[in-house]
Amino acid sequence: MGAPFETTRPQPKTTTPHHLSQYLSLIQQYMNVFRLDNAIFLAERCVAEFPTDATALYWLCFAYYRAGQLSRAQHLLSKAAHLTPQLLYLSAQCSYELKEYARAEDALLHDCRHQFKQQQSSSSQGHTFEEWILQTTPCPIPNGAAGLALLGDIFRKSNRTQRAIQYYQMSLQLDPFLWSSFQALTDLGVTVDVPTVFGVSQTTTAAAATKTPLQPPSPGLTPIHQNTTTTMEEETPSHTTVVLRRARQVANRGYYPPSPETPSLSTVTRSMRYLQGLGEAEPRSLFLEDEKGDVQTILQTLATMGQAYQELSHYQCQACLDTFKQLPLSHQNTSWVLHQQGKAYLELNEFTAAQRCLEHMKHLEPGRLEGLELLSTVYWHQKKEVDLASLAQHVVAWDKRSPQAWCVVGNCFSLQKDHEAALSFFKRSLQLDPDFTYTHTLCGYEYMANEDFEPAMACFRQAIRTNERHYNAWYGLGCIYHRQEKYDLAEYHFERACQIHPTSSILRCNWGISQHANGKAYQALETLAEASRLDPGNPQARFQRATIYSALHRPQEAALELEKVRDAAPREATVHFCLGKVYKRLGRLDDAMKCFLAAMDLDPKDSQMIKSAMDKLDNPDIDEETMIPF
Amino acid sequence: MGAPFETTRPQPKTTTPHHLSQYLSLIQQYMNVFRLDNAIFLAERCVAEFPTDATALYWLCFAYYRAGQLSRAQHLLSKAAHLTPQLLYLSAQCSYELKEYARAEDALLHDCRHQFKQQQSSSSQGHTFEEWILQTTPCPIPNGAAGLALLGDIFRKSNRTQRAIQYYQMSLQLDPFLWSSFQALTDLGVTVDVPTVFGVSQTTTAAAATKTPLQPPSPGLTPIHQNTTTTMEEETPSHTTVVLRRARQVANRGYYPPSPETPSLSTVTRSMRYLQGLGEAEPRSLFLEDEKGDVQTILQTLATMGQAYQELSHYQCQACLDTFKQLPLSHQNTSWVLHQQGKAYLELNEFTAAQRCLEHMKHLEPGRLEGLELLSTVYWHQKKEVDLASLAQHVVAWDKRSPQAWCVVGNCFSLQKDHEAALSFFKRSLQLDPDFTYTHTLCGYEYMANEDFEPAMACFRQAIRTNERHYNAWYGLGCIYHRQEKYDLAEYHFERACQIHPTSSILRCNWGISQHANGKAYQALETLAEASRLDPGNPQARFQRATIYSALHRPQEAALELEKVRDAAPREATVHFCLGKVYKRLGRLDDAMKCFLAAMDLDPKDSQMIKSAMDKLDNPDIDEETMIPF
Repeated sequence: MGAPFETTRPQPKTTTPHHLSQYLSLIQQYMNVFRLDNAIFLAERCVAEFPTDATALYWLCFAYYRAGQLSRAQHLLSKAAHLTPQLLYLSAQCSYELKEYARAEDALLHDCRHQFKQQQSSSSQGHTFEEWILQTTPCPIPNGAAGLALLGDIFRKSNRTQRAIQYYQMSLQLDPFLWSSFQALTDLGVTVDVPTVFGVSQTTTAAAATKTPLQPPSPGLTPIHQNTTTTMEEETPSHTTVVLRRARQVANRGYYPPSPETPSLSTVTRSMRYLQGLGEAEPRSLFLEDEKGDVQTILQTLATMGQAYQELSHYQCQACLDTFKQLPLSHQNTSWVLHQQGKAYLELNEFTAAQRCLEHMKHLEPGRLEGLELLSTVYWHQKKEVDLASLAQHVVAWDKRSPQAWCVVGNCFSLQKDHEAALSFFKRSLQLDPDFTYTHTLCGYEYMANEDFEPAMACFRQAIRTNERHYNAWYGLGCIYHRQEKYDLAEYHFERACQIHPTSSILRCNWGISQHANGKAYQALETLAEASRLDPGNPQARFQRATIYSALHRPQEAALELEKVRDAAPREATVHFCLGKVYKRLGRLDDAMKCFLAAMDLDPKDSQMIKSAMDKLDNPDIDEETMIPF
Repeated sequence: MGAPFETTRPQPKTTTPHHLSQYLSLIQQYMNVFRLDNAIFLAERCVAEFPTDATALYWLCFAYYRAGQLSRAQHLLSKAAHLTPQLLYLSAQCSYELKEYARAEDALLHDCRHQFKQQQSSSSQGHTFEEWILQTTPCPIPNGAAGLALLGDIFRKSNRTQRAIQYYQMSLQLDPFLWSSFQALTDLGVTVDVPTVFGVSQTTTAAAATKTPLQPPSPGLTPIHQNTTTTMEEETPSHTTVVLRRARQVANRGYYPPSPETPSLSTVTRSMRYLQGLGEAEPRSLFLEDEKGDVQTILQTLATMGQAYQELSHYQCQACLDTFKQLPLSHQNTSWVLHQQGKAYLELNEFTAAQRCLEHMKHLEPGRLEGLELLSTVYWHQKKEVDLASLAQHVVAWDKRSPQAWCVVGNCFSLQKDHEAALSFFKRSLQLDPDFTYTHTLCGYEYMANEDFEPAMACFRQAIRTNERHYNAWYGLGCIYHRQEKYDLAEYHFERACQIHPTSSILRCNWGISQHANGKAYQALETLAEASRLDPGNPQARFQRATIYSALHRPQEAALELEKVRDAAPREATVHFCLGKVYKRLGRLDDAMKCFLAAMDLDPKDSQMIKSAMDKLDNPDIDEETMIPF
């Protein structure tokens, strides 16, 4: 039995034995049918016989990876004498998932940096490393755009945000289909020029673009933005053409190397036939077609979605909803779009519409838990206890191990004012995913409801650590500092919240109040005017302006503001009362008396205070400055 | 912006838009580079546009599956109007991993059963369902042999062992490379005809086969074995040819459908070149070769390994070690083979050799935790505390979430006689994998060491529930029943252990002792004779025979056995003492005195008892029957 082996000993250096290709074909087939155990067994045998073959090593490590044995794959790769780009990429992926970011970065960049240094010494060009990467063909990073995107992820996770942004941008420049990079950039607060990135002609999206101009982000949040624009503009003349050419290359020719495999053309045809129903149909011609087709349909969809996603990210919620309506119905009726729409309506405080979208999403795909935490917040605001309890059951039944599940359950107890229980479920949610920003914030508000400010602040800070653009947490911190009378800190935190969500009237109103408290009356007046402009239906902004005018001894302007507030909210006793006091200062005693009577009529329980004011109507003012906010 | 979409609305029924193939190409590329987020996003868009396309649905569900969202994939598949075999297989895989075995079985068998019933009513053939499956071409089960193997897994996990065996056998008949099915059959105690299954001619493995004849398994353990033999024998005339033809089909043409994809031939070539180092080398011709090559090299390797694996499964440990030596060195020097060799040496109680194999395995692949629990047992037996502690650190550092890690740590504390700590770590091991048989057994022994028999028995029963062929647990139960003087139960459990491990002298010896205690003296003598034959170096079997002869008042035969024991173990005081007493009964008082003196010399601490026997040498015997076992 020993004899047959003597003649077939591995001869990796001279010719490649045919049974290597048979091994590889078998391993890939077993991977395709999820028989990882068999694939691993054969791949181990194959590597034993062909220890220097990169393809065999790739398949063994990939099988370990698929089976969840990341450290084992990583170790095996670390021992290999020479790593091909594909093996380096797999190694980086393993290290990334093992949270060994420095090692992952090294796998992707080490060889490149070496190559760059060699080229630099030979030619004296003044390129940066990143410029050199983009200008070199083929891209020197393993797996090109995917490698750059993975570097983006690595930098993001290791808190090197600027570099993350740079590499995401590079990856998107090489592959316009890398939606994940676009989404990451948007989530990081970078304003991406959507038509440019997706190669859609400016005219096509012009209507949407002019209707909803994207505000330039504040400098603090997107330090790299100028840089991008420059890079993109250099290519402007034929930019659309360039992007389309790249897109066609990616989609038709296969930009990324397919998994190493050995199928013949007939195999591919067979598999297609099989998929369509056991060899009954003829092989579909499209799979053997050449690259005549166009990619614009897909890019157009991505561009519209990207536009809407970016608008939502800048809290231009109505614009976002309008943009989504431009999608064909087949795309509008998907859970992802419904999720974004629900979020937009929630930001607009339109709870009924938000509920409709998110419930439709849940109906379409009950197993999709992303977004259900928002639905629970919608129910919470509407005080719908039964719906919230039923949603909690639903999410826990679908996936006990998801952070959304316990976030929803926590909200359920929060609505019942059982803060202890709510906090313990929120904590379970965070155990499952310590980066689940939303739960950190909800935890913070739960502590706030208990007047437990120290832990509340810790929660908000954690939320910001996981997502710097989570305005809710900045707002929560601002509220606490304001209550603690640390007005400068309150002002700073409200300002950060406003930078992220520039269209929120409520945030801006709070900012104005803290500016006033911090002694900046005139800035406060401007801020509150802007808040009033953003939502003319928000009486709080005008009321606060009236308070400031009154404090500045400008009762005329205070009266003007309060009159507008009264017209908008005629049943608010406090407004009438305050207006009465202002009229008194202006000497309009009859008007003042009418206001006090209206206030008394609307709010009999405060009658004592109002009566006292009426009694003192003829006495001079002493304490008008301190007005009671409603 | 709405306009472009009007013209490209999905038209699944008439012609297939080219951008469907572009979507599919992109999705597959992102899967290949582990960008599951991007693949899922694009697949969702693709399914929205082409809701009836099976390939698009497959990729979306496969992407969910890869991302660990099994319920979501399962739900999506359950809603589809028509499922192709590939989709049914994916659905079954999801259900299997979600432990929903009835649902998994239904996905694979429902359509087939329907088809079978229709055929049965039209033709009046008397085939069983399973015969019909094997005779129908192409195999009506989704993914053929892989589908049958998955059914084997499903039946095994749902405790339908006989059907599991049947389906594993069917899968192996269709695909001789399905090592996982072979291994499952062997682990279930089925004797597989190795040369037949792997299509290796009988003559090639004849040497090994005659040298180490496989014992037929006991009927209770392998009820289906006769069935197999019949099926195989029917094909004997051209069997090897048949297997080879099948093997060639699987390896060369691609028996399993590859993942649905759209690469052109040039793409495959490109990827190969890429893998070998960024387009430097020419495409390797082997990947475009046709099916001229032969599969015998691979099958030969599998046959040799299969032979060894089966021998080890029958505890023909020396034969197993000999068979492994027939492998080429490249295969011998792999961690899998070293693991099996280590196990074989451990079963032979050759701790030094076992340690050498398992340490070599650990050195080759530090990240391979399978088998390190055996190394910890080797250290335990050798009382190597330092090595065991260092091993415990190693496994915990590599993978805290593996059952092996905490099994080793438990052994570490067991050696230090800290039973409480050992038990708590063993329990952690079982939390991570409740089916990790070995830890159940170790738990049982730990409780036994504490004389805590009830929980010990519960542990041994759990071990048997997870693996009926784990002889160690049967042995543990036998020991407890023996100590509780429930000799019939002890006898039954020792017998089961002996059926599994027929070559163990120690197991058989215990069986004989319990037979004797149960009043079956003559059967006990036979059992002990066999135990003695299995390991002539084991003095316990002969000593027990002497005990029985003495109890049967046959001192002559008792003396003969004891003399042999004395010659083998001349420094055992008890043997001399017992021999002295037997000589006394035979009237050989001088010889008796010599024996007593020798015993006194070897074991001064029992001198009082020996002295008393010497004093009573001239008195007649009263209590010889009760002899002290050593």
